[in-house]
Amino acid sequence: MSEYKAFRVELSDKIAHVTINRPDKANSMNADFWTEIIDIFRWADETDEVRVVVLSGAGKHFSAGIDLMLLAQAGSRLGKDVGRNARALRKVILDMQASFNAVDRCSKPVLAAIQGYCLGGGIDLIAACDMRYSTVDAQFSIKEVDMGMAADVGTLQRLPRIIGDGMMRELAYTGRMVDGEEARQIGLVNRTYADQSALLDGVFELARQIASKSPIAVRGSKEMIRYARDHRVEDGLEYIATWNAAMLQSVDLQAAIAAHMGKTQPEFAD
Amino acid sequence: MSEYKAFRVELSDKIAHVTINRPDKANSMNADFWTEIIDIFRWADETDEVRVVVLSGAGKHFSAGIDLMLLAQAGSRLGKDVGRNARALRKVILDMQASFNAVDRCSKPVLAAIQGYCLGGGIDLIAACDMRYSTVDAQFSIKEVDMGMAADVGTLQRLPRIIGDGMMRELAYTGRMVDGEEARQIGLVNRTYADQSALLDGVFELARQIASKSPIAVRGSKEMIRYARDHRVEDGLEYIATWNAAMLQSVDLQAAIAAHMGKTQPEFAD
Amino acid sequence: MSEYKAFRVELSDKIAHVTINRPDKANSMNADFWTEIIDIFRWADETDEVRVVVLSGAGKHFSAGIDLMLLAQAGSRLGKDVGRNARALRKVILDMQASFNAVDRCSKPVLAAIQGYCLGGGIDLIAACDMRYSTVDAQFSIKEVDMGMAADVGTLQRLPRIIGDGMMRELAYTGRMVDGEEARQIGLVNRTYADQSALLDGVFELARQIASKSPIAVRGSKEMIRYARDHRVEDGLEYIATWNAAMLQSVDLQAAIAAHMGKTQPEFAD
Amino acid sequence: MSEYKAFRVELSDKIAHVTINRPDKANSMNADFWTEIIDIFRWADETDEVRVVVLSGAGKHFSAGIDLMLLAQAGSRLGKDVGRNARALRKVILDMQASFNAVDRCSKPVLAAIQGYCLGGGIDLIAACDMRYSTVDAQFSIKEVDMGMAADVGTLQRLPRIIGDGMMRELAYTGRMVDGEEARQIGLVNRTYADQSALLDGVFELARQIASKSPIAVRGSKEMIRYARDHRVEDGLEYIATWNAAMLQSVDLQAAIAAHMGKTQPEFAD
Amino acid sequence: MSEYKAFRVELSDKIAHVTINRPDKANSMNADFWTEIIDIFRWADETDEVRVVVLSGAGKHFSAGIDLMLLAQAGSRLGKDVGRNARALRKVILDMQASFNAVDRCSKPVLAAIQGYCLGGGIDLIAACDMRYSTVDAQFSIKEVDMGMAADVGTLQRLPRIIGDGMMRELAYTGRMVDGEEARQIGLVNRTYADQSALLDGVFELARQIASKSPIAVRGSKEMIRYARDHRVEDGLEYIATWNAAMLQSVDLQAAIAAHMGKTQPEFAD
Amino acid sequence: MSEYKAFRVELSDKIAHVTINRPDKANSMNADFWTEIIDIFRWADETDEVRVVVLSGAGKHFSAGIDLMLLAQAGSRLGKDVGRNARALRKVILDMQASFNAVDRCSKPVLAAIQGYCLGGGIDLIAACDMRYSTVDAQFSIKEVDMGMAADVGTLQRLPRIIGDGMMRELAYTGRMVDGEEARQIGLVNRTYADQSALLDGVFELARQIASKSPIAVRGSKEMIRYARDHRVEDGLEYIATWNAAMLQSVDLQAAIAAHMGKTQPEFAD
Repeated sequence: MSEYKAFRVELSDKIAHVTINRPDKANSMNADFWTEIIDIFRWADETDEVRVVVLSGAGKHFSAGIDLMLLAQAGSRLGKDVGRNARALRKVILDMQASFNAVDRCSKPVLAAIQGYCLGGGIDLIAACDMRYSTVDAQFSIKEVDMGMAADVGTLQRLPRIIGDGMMRELAYTGRMVDGEEARQIGLVNRTYADQSALLDGVFELARQIASKSPIAVRGSKEMIRYARDHRVEDGLEYIATWNAAMLQSVDLQAAIAAHMGKTQPEFAD
Repeated sequence: MSEYKAFRVELSDKIAHVTINRPDKANSMNADFWTEIIDIFRWADETDEVRVVVLSGAGKHFSAGIDLMLLAQAGSRLGKDVGRNARALRKVILDMQASFNAVDRCSKPVLAAIQGYCLGGGIDLIAACDMRYSTVDAQFSIKEVDMGMAADVGTLQRLPRIIGDGMMRELAYTGRMVDGEEARQIGLVNRTYADQSALLDGVFELARQIASKSPIAVRGSKEMIRYARDHRVEDGLEYIATWNAAMLQSVDLQAAIAAHMGKTQPEFAD
Repeated sequence: MSEYKAFRVELSDKIAHVTINRPDKANSMNADFWTEIIDIFRWADETDEVRVVVLSGAGKHFSAGIDLMLLAQAGSRLGKDVGRNARALRKVILDMQASFNAVDRCSKPVLAAIQGYCLGGGIDLIAACDMRYSTVDAQFSIKEVDMGMAADVGTLQRLPRIIGDGMMRELAYTGRMVDGEEARQIGLVNRTYADQSALLDGVFELARQIASKSPIAVRGSKEMIRYARDHRVEDGLEYIATWNAAMLQSVDLQAAIAAHMGKTQPEFAD
Repeated sequence: MSEYKAFRVELSDKIAHVTINRPDKANSMNADFWTEIIDIFRWADETDEVRVVVLSGAGKHFSAGIDLMLLAQAGSRLGKDVGRNARALRKVILDMQASFNAVDRCSKPVLAAIQGYCLGGGIDLIAACDMRYSTVDAQFSIKEVDMGMAADVGTLQRLPRIIGDGMMRELAYTGRMVDGEEARQIGLVNRTYADQSALLDGVFELARQIASKSPIAVRGSKEMIRYARDHRVEDGLEYIATWNAAMLQSVDLQAAIAAHMGKTQPEFAD
Repeated sequence: MSEYKAFRVELSDKIAHVTINRPDKANSMNADFWTEIIDIFRWADETDEVRVVVLSGAGKHFSAGIDLMLLAQAGSRLGKDVGRNARALRKVILDMQASFNAVDRCSKPVLAAIQGYCLGGGIDLIAACDMRYSTVDAQFSIKEVDMGMAADVGTLQRLPRIIGDGMMRELAYTGRMVDGEEARQIGLVNRTYADQSALLDGVFELARQIASKSPIAVRGSKEMIRYARDHRVEDGLEYIATWNAAMLQSVDLQAAIAAHMGKTQPEFAD
Repeated sequence: MSEYKAFRVELSDKIAHVTINRPDKANSMNADFWTEIIDIFRWADETDEVRVVVLSGAGKHFSAGIDLMLLAQAGSRLGKDVGRNARALRKVILDMQASFNAVDRCSKPVLAAIQGYCLGGGIDLIAACDMRYSTVDAQFSIKEVDMGMAADVGTLQRLPRIIGDGMMRELAYTGRMVDGEEARQIGLVNRTYADQSALLDGVFELARQIASKSPIAVRGSKEMIRYARDHRVEDGLEYIATWNAAMLQSVDLQAAIAAHMGKTQPEFAD
């Protein structure tokens, strides 16, 4: 685990706690943020000891979205040829997408704990997490429309599968604020909590439960749900059959069955 | 803007108001309806001044669905060879589908405002809109099953993404009535209003908000959500990156950033 | 209709009632279960007189999932070569999937009526049904994670389309219990009933409604929704156009129109 | 059949002969060309008497590709905002693609007869035809690369399925000339002929054969091959089963069997 | 290995030799043929001792295609309602497709050895095999077009991937005869032989080579090529990675490496 | 450009020449090879001055495939739990695939020049290149089958699109040697040359031609062909329309048109 400028990362009891750590800037996403997040989630992905990740924001807000300075800089670097500018911009966007793809593809579950503002890029980010939990008074907005642009780092691709097509469009076209309670009703978050402290307690409790399960089982489940999102049912079935052909030869299955028979709590290796 | 027999079309303040205008026939869908709707939505699509479309029905009902006379006529034109009949019927269905595809593919958001009956083809139509709003006492039914046929102009393809797979099947197999309140709970409409007047006020208020946004941003968002519906996440990400490579060179982004910095309201060209 | 060991099958009034019939074993899924279910649903699929299927469980519980003896046996048959074991296990899983695919692909609607426990394989099974109804105190759990494995007979592929991506992952990673009321809120079941008797009454009432409709219409609707789940909207539209090119030449359409005009109740042949 | 400016269209013996008719401009594709071709192929598609289409070029060359004046005009209409220009250009390209999609989707086989130059847009055009035949000294080139652009009306999408991935890329990156003989070897044309007269004789002989077959059979085959190009094998099988469920009830099948038994030549209605 | 009416099946040296055995009927495909072929290829698929299958025809011809009596019978069973007829016919076609799908999905390579006529259903059949070899004077024809129908048991779906899109369409629309030499040039067969005896010698030599390889390796390769046909490159890569994660733990890899080091011939278990 | 252990990399006249440089080991692919190739192709992708890449092998052979020591090491690192081994092996394979994906996704054309042996991993590698050229006596073999495994770094996914489905399977199941002349006939290489010197001359001549074209045009063409390989025609058309909406605003198009009008040779910026 290295030191990071835009994040604080802690690991204990199999749970990696990743905190966006620019509270005085409302955790807006600067250049450090976009590169460090790739390293952090690669580390979480590859470190067997990490079984689950909790992602939260330091201070009053989860994140106000992309740092506007970054956008301004990207703009100032453009030249005169529209074609070559397009080539450059496309690469910038693909690179930023890669940052959140690292969250989506991390083989361990990622739980987002959200308080205060979660705006623009913040929505793109939590849409790439596995589950979302918030305080009742959290504030969500697909802010990109107010910046004169369509969201381009994942919201428009991932969110429709989470909240359904109808409300999705209203939020994308209007950029209106949604509070925690409405977010729960439309499925954007799974549960709300009275305040930030209760939120973190609740999310960590959930994380601990997940960390106690067989990592072979949890990781397989995540891979399969991710796969099912983009493939037809039949392809998904063939894929899990191929996957489990190896995984069912693991000792975790025997350990679980033995524990179940003996009514004890099984212990699983990383 | 031409004159239409089955519709009334008005444009003001960037909002096109399209009204099905056969109130004495419960706005049932006759031959004029099916051809005019293509022209209207092509016009809305291509006219830069139109930024958003509100679709409603004149009189007591939104629409009672396809005019049964039309079905009867189609039947009377069939000949003796089943193969050639099939060739002809397939073309009739594809043509009717094209009418609602024009709504789905219109590059501007389409908001449906629904009161009274919304039956059969009416459901196919609102499923092709971006968002749906209704009075609390509106009445929805996938009526085709009572006509001895499977719905074939879009309901069975588009609605599962809006209301989920479980309730979808119940409504398709039984054709049972759903009122506005239940429609809201299952995600078929985004919001309900006490009566038709409040409904139109509410929907126009929303339309005005959308019309005030950058048309480059709104249109891009719609295109991306439509694309995401039919493609995997990764394809959607690649597509928006290619799209925004050009769009981020638009002045709208700069205007929005400048307005945001100066805390003023930005103005966007059509 | 043959005799079955793990099931009881009755047919009356066009409704096939399929009951998992091992109440003393909490209807856990043994070897008989996995093979008989294929025969039963092939029979339901091919028997014109069957128009709808109700699937329930005898006794206190719907089903506690796969019989652990079966898992243990499968394990004991494994040899020393990992590659050949994988070949064998993959075939076992594909065969079990085929059992629930028979439910999914049955051309008649399948309504699950659930009381008590519905665990592990029970969830895989109801996810392959068309609709789900339960008592308020039913208990659902994606139990596989507690067995040290990822669910591999359909839950992870079919359920996200029913309950949405966010809650799906929480339930898959934690295996936590969900009661009937929460199941209804997240869309896992369409409706809850006070107790098992009210449940069966309600579900049979619904089944009777469906059985009274044109079987050509109901079957076409099911086929189209199944197809839409795995294909893009445009493909679905082309497919229904091709399908209905033949089906609209059926007498059911004429019978329905005539009945509608004459305000009588139409009768449809099987 | 209307009069056209860029084409000559004749119909005799069930064969529509469509000739690009700007020989003094090497049949380059001007504004008339792009709009008229849609009307012509819609007519061919909808006119039952047309069973097959032969597409050729008047004069020395098949076609030199897009008229450069058209490109220049499109350029001169661009404004200052890159985003709005992109919106306009995207529409122009989609419209031009629609012209060749009309050829691809025409339900009757389209046979291209090629002599002299077939350059740039000419390749996009013949890639949308069913089969290609040429003189031995015809000259083919994916000329777009020399115009500083990637081909955008179909070559890059359709040709890889015809000539394979390896040679495809060489031709697209270099724009080098390929003569008729090499074209035959790599599968770009099915057969070569000594000169234009022999070419037309050969292609018309083939067209006559096709015109003598059941139009239900030929049309079904084309639709299925087009479908198979874009779908997986299994989807294609399901689609033809649904299609033929109606078509096998046609009298053409009985007529063909009767003729086969009686060793006579069957006659098929349009 | 049971006795069959339409086939002769032999197994020696790991090679199953399946011969269509109705030489006096030019091996036309009768009712026995369609059901027995499923059993035979299921047996070949599940019998570990079978490592490769050779499919040939007894007598002068490989196969003249479907038995016309069968078509006539299917026709005579149709009733008056077009919709219910379509339901029945669709099932008949899907069932016949299932017969050739059994060949396609057999996990062992299937080599077709073709002499004399290979017409209509014969083409559908060999398109479902892995590789095709023929005598120089074999005669191939997509005969269905002469029966007034589009081929519906696999030719139109599988053959374009084998011979390319351009020649595919010519053969499908004209039904013209292709001899062995042309078949080789267009990729329909991999190699031709002077006569039937040389053909069988050549194909069995190839079969022996394949049978000497690791069955884990050969089977994996077939599964991956079949998968690649219907999926994008990236999906195929992910799938083989998951597959080989188990298979590389097999002893076959170690045996092969050891043999390679020691320059001996490895022996592989079934 | 850094120094590499397994490669030699030169850049002149816009052409990057990448040479596998372990001639005393027949250019077998060791650990350095797999990591360095990613860096090299990322550099080629991102360096505007590089317009085309030539990939060749130093010494007598192009490449003998994966270094067997590497396989042996991977094997020795495996533990006792099959599930965790599978997790580890899957990652190893995905990582190796990433090495060749870097070649496939490099935005500049990659031309392979092949002499001597091209075995196993060598085939996987050249299948990821754009085009392949060889000496007449080059020797190709899908060697993996002789190692007891299915090829898992790209051959089975990419090669069928290049050489067709029929011959593909023969080569994959038998691992038999194919020489340069046969390779040309089946489309595996585009052209053969008498010896290595003529080969490099020929490939560099082609590379110079490509380097003289507009990089905007060449790169767009490659991206589109790659996209077309994995998507349906219609998706490909929509994608190029979106892409060219920006690219046609580049000065390259104007420069090319001006040069064409003035009959001069255009110069394009990187």
